[in-house]
Amino acid sequence: LPLHVLVLGGDGIGPEVTAQALRVLRRMQAKHDLPLTIEEQPFGNATWRATGSLMPAETHAAVDRADAVLFGAADSLGRAAMPAEERARGSLLSLRRRLGLFANLRPVRTERALDAVSPFKPQTLAGVDLVFVRELSGGVYYGEPRGIERDADGRRRGINTHIYDEDQIIRAARFAFALARGRRGLLTSVDKANVMEAGALWRQVVTALHHDEFRDVRMEHMLADTCALMLNREPRRFDVILTDNLFGDVLSDAAAGLAGSLGLLPSGSLSAPRPDGRRRALYEPVHGSAPDIAGKGVANPLAAILSVALLLRWSAGAEEAAQEVEAAVTAALDAGARCADIALPGEAALGTEAMGEAVLARL
Amino acid sequence: LPLHVLVLGGDGIGPEVTAQALRVLRRMQAKHDLPLTIEEQPFGNATWRATGSLMPAETHAAVDRADAVLFGAADSLGRAAMPAEERARGSLLSLRRRLGLFANLRPVRTERALDAVSPFKPQTLAGVDLVFVRELSGGVYYGEPRGIERDADGRRRGINTHIYDEDQIIRAARFAFALARGRRGLLTSVDKANVMEAGALWRQVVTALHHDEFRDVRMEHMLADTCALMLNREPRRFDVILTDNLFGDVLSDAAAGLAGSLGLLPSGSLSAPRPDGRRRALYEPVHGSAPDIAGKGVANPLAAILSVALLLRWSAGAEEAAQEVEAAVTAALDAGARCADIALPGEAALGTEAMGEAVLARL
Ligand SMILES: CC(C)[C@H](C(=O)O)[C@@H](O)C(=O)O
Ligand SMILES: CC(C)[C@H](C(=O)O)[C@@H](O)C(=O)O
Repeated sequence: LPLHVLVLGGDGIGPEVTAQALRVLRRMQAKHDLPLTIEEQPFGNATWRATGSLMPAETHAAVDRADAVLFGAADSLGRAAMPAEERARGSLLSLRRRLGLFANLRPVRTERALDAVSPFKPQTLAGVDLVFVRELSGGVYYGEPRGIERDADGRRRGINTHIYDEDQIIRAARFAFALARGRRGLLTSVDKANVMEAGALWRQVVTALHHDEFRDVRMEHMLADTCALMLNREPRRFDVILTDNLFGDVLSDAAAGLAGSLGLLPSGSLSAPRPDGRRRALYEPVHGSAPDIAGKGVANPLAAILSVALLLRWSAGAEEAAQEVEAAVTAALDAGARCADIALPGEAALGTEAMGEAVLARL
Repeated sequence: LPLHVLVLGGDGIGPEVTAQALRVLRRMQAKHDLPLTIEEQPFGNATWRATGSLMPAETHAAVDRADAVLFGAADSLGRAAMPAEERARGSLLSLRRRLGLFANLRPVRTERALDAVSPFKPQTLAGVDLVFVRELSGGVYYGEPRGIERDADGRRRGINTHIYDEDQIIRAARFAFALARGRRGLLTSVDKANVMEAGALWRQVVTALHHDEFRDVRMEHMLADTCALMLNREPRRFDVILTDNLFGDVLSDAAAGLAGSLGLLPSGSLSAPRPDGRRRALYEPVHGSAPDIAGKGVANPLAAILSVALLLRWSAGAEEAAQEVEAAVTAALDAGARCADIALPGEAALGTEAMGEAVLARL
């Protein structure tokens, strides 16, 4: 069966960058004769204004039949005025849940061409090639009880619950170990076991799995605060970083500084294999909807385009095509193509579409 | 009444770096004729081996009469073999609690002399002068329920609870706003309000307090993931960063990369004012016990020495003396004094005591 890809551009710059990503996907489909079907559906704030729903029934149905979703962005702050129930139904979190995604892959590589715009020294950046496996189905994102309530003295208090069961930990860790095995063979498991019992369980479970199934992979535990520091001081020491939903959110953004801009960082999220062996997946830029620059045609589409590379690799099994896309991005950057987010002061910047062209020209 | 200072060297490199900090404190006491009494007490793993207690009754009593604790380090990993009850009684967290500390100040400034050892470019570092106000009494560090239990299917699961009530938020925020008012007038309040209800309450309470009492201070809200990125990309945009216990832990370590080394970062934690108007306080390096280099006389004492500057400022009301200590550290670094953590490869490094001398020579 062909891989069924659903495109949800969503809010803000989402549709703009996704349009360029889609051009790249279609090009690779043609070039490599990939068995893909592609469908686009409305989703997000404009859809809400037009139809009264963030994710109309049609789009819901499309999500349910999709193998892979190519996602743009969701502007949750722009939804403050919508009914809470609608916001929850149409949120990125509910989409992740509906698709059963548990492993969020966030690769961070540095491009030499961007040394000049990086806040870091070139020697810090050289050779950085790491990937986060962020657990995406659990933790404080979904834990109950949660909410704002009043205590005995009438004071409001906010409560969220961080929970992981051992199956969730094993599932994410097994994925991360297997990934490390195919890379440089180092897994860094990140928690806050010195303060959180849930972190202590995380550590135990990862240690046991290492012992039982992955002794050929080197494994280390690291506290989340130490990891935040080491990502800045010695990023090239990392290979695969396994961590929970919340630490993964914060630490992967901390590492984004290494890549020069959020505008370069792709992500892919996977479910457990279905009976047919395929994993459901969602690919999206790490950046958000950037309402301040939406509609201006200036957003950097490289994160979305690199998310297509991940789709090719993880969902289409087209490793060669994935590498071609990544190489084309590097070649475009090496040739001096820049969007505003990665241009030096005074340097000419390409718009979203022109950057898409710059990549397509190298495919 | 004189300020009563209790010195707890603790574990690993704690006693070594604290010894140098204490020399600096005594020098400033003499020079400025400060009304201080100083007491040292045993605490930590060596004390446990000698007495069967991490914190003997004598030390507990000393904590209760101290106005300010000058703390070295606690090696919690080295305590795995001790009874859980003893570990809890002698932990840094229980000390923080006993002293009623709620505001953990973590200033991050960059030293031009260390540009060469920083992972960041000099232009990223120039002019960085920020301070974290990390809420220290609540959040996931203390929330109940917590622990490892079995679910209905017999699977183990780890649970921690993140809770903040509005009084805790107001107390920390009021402190941070007042601090910002005396600095550059910008407060950045950091949460994850798009995912956590406790973060949404945090945001509401900070917004209301800003409106009611601090309209002259500029205030912005920032998501924790965005803050992690911005600390790397544009650190000089920050003045005071207010955040919760866990985000404060991780983000302040992320920012530590800016200072070149954890070995340079001091911290001070304060309680609410007592009836006599004084706040109880604990001053400690941000770094830990570093068991790998303990006892070798090579640890960098500057974080401990700069913690003395914070003690002078916040507990002794001796701002001039505080600035002298900070200036002496800068002067020593400018003159080329380096410990191993901040030496370039091949550069001669001073030991702990020699670095202490290098600072004392400039006081
Ligand atoms: C938008 C938000 C819910 C999301 C998250 O926290 O997971 C985002 O920050 C991300 O990292 O994908
Ligand atoms: C040792 C640990 C409990 C502590 C914390 O997490 O608060 C440390 O990391 C710190 O930042 O002071």
